[in-house]
Amino acid sequence: MSANPQPLQVGTVLFDGFELLDAFGPLEMLGMLKPAPVLSMLAEHPGSIRSNQGPCCVAEAPLAGETPLDILLVPGGMGTRRELGNPAFLDALRRRSETAKIVASVCTGSALLAKAGVLEGRRATTNKRAFRFVASLGANVTWVPEARWVEDGKYFTSSGVSAGMDMALGLIHHLFGPEACAEAASRAEYEWHSDKGWDPFAKQNGLS
Amino acid sequence: MSANPQPLQVGTVLFDGFELLDAFGPLEMLGMLKPAPVLSMLAEHPGSIRSNQGPCCVAEAPLAGETPLDILLVPGGMGTRRELGNPAFLDALRRRSETAKIVASVCTGSALLAKAGVLEGRRATTNKRAFRFVASLGANVTWVPEARWVEDGKYFTSSGVSAGMDMALGLIHHLFGPEACAEAASRAEYEWHSDKGWDPFAKQNGLS
Repeated sequence: MSANPQPLQVGTVLFDGFELLDAFGPLEMLGMLKPAPVLSMLAEHPGSIRSNQGPCCVAEAPLAGETPLDILLVPGGMGTRRELGNPAFLDALRRRSETAKIVASVCTGSALLAKAGVLEGRRATTNKRAFRFVASLGANVTWVPEARWVEDGKYFTSSGVSAGMDMALGLIHHLFGPEACAEAASRAEYEWHSDKGWDPFAKQNGLS
Repeated sequence: MSANPQPLQVGTVLFDGFELLDAFGPLEMLGMLKPAPVLSMLAEHPGSIRSNQGPCCVAEAPLAGETPLDILLVPGGMGTRRELGNPAFLDALRRRSETAKIVASVCTGSALLAKAGVLEGRRATTNKRAFRFVASLGANVTWVPEARWVEDGKYFTSSGVSAGMDMALGLIHHLFGPEACAEAASRAEYEWHSDKGWDPFAKQNGLS
């Protein structure tokens, strides 16, 4: 895919205690595309959703909706601990993942995908401080300790927080090529870590 | 200031068309502090505020309020063009800036501060693609074309979008020292550009 005639439909999953940059870092990068993507915010119960840091964002559509998505973005954050025990949330996440063309997670968002059974048979990564906890979830997931992000088929999973921006640019590169990626990074004045294997935080946290 | 006994009071100015990462990048970094800062979202008219990218965030307090702030954070975005012609907004911004201990802007947020008269006699920077436009505002501001961010007294102004994260870590370094800064960057899995003068985007845009 090198042309981009139709705006991407991007759905971001919000839940109380989501991490701000996990959601808005990738959305900033994807938002640089031309034409601008349609960014919908999804939640089990639409309305005002409080982030882990306090500010509230508005989810206007149900996670359990049927609208097909080009990209389903799943942030992490402390709120993932609660949603890991919420079967209705996990079921809606699994169904929405099945119909999305691409599923992308940031930080402990991959814990939710693993628990929902979405990552079975896949390679994935997650936040490096939460790595051992997340790697205990998902019976048949190959967790990669040292990676900025991991691509496996339609699944893109990134390391903690800031890594989501690098993954999002990787996703733009994958979908639309190097020029679109460079343009998005330049407009965001962002220095892209283009190497998926770049991960000093694995070593910092005793994982490599 | 090396101890951090009280949570910082951080107020972020929202307006329709604010840029997502300008606001939430710095808030992610500041949110890593212990104890966690109190992050209040301010607007001329509190309520749901639509970002430049589409997602809405909730401003729960008026910009014109009297609560003293440790940090006033001013994002940029396409919505700044409208607010530059809004005297009530600019007056509230000026008053809130006067009482804040630190005023920090990202991207074209410095255009709002300049137009409000807050940066008179100061050095400042802004988004590199909007530099010439922003530099036409503010009669007595020394605009620095090549800088990741500029510190002048209580005023911290950053370049475009992603630069706000580097500035925020610089602010943490300034307030609480290198260990607090390194800890925040590590928890966010973020590679800090610690050099205020690092700015490849100035050259990309013909400014150096």
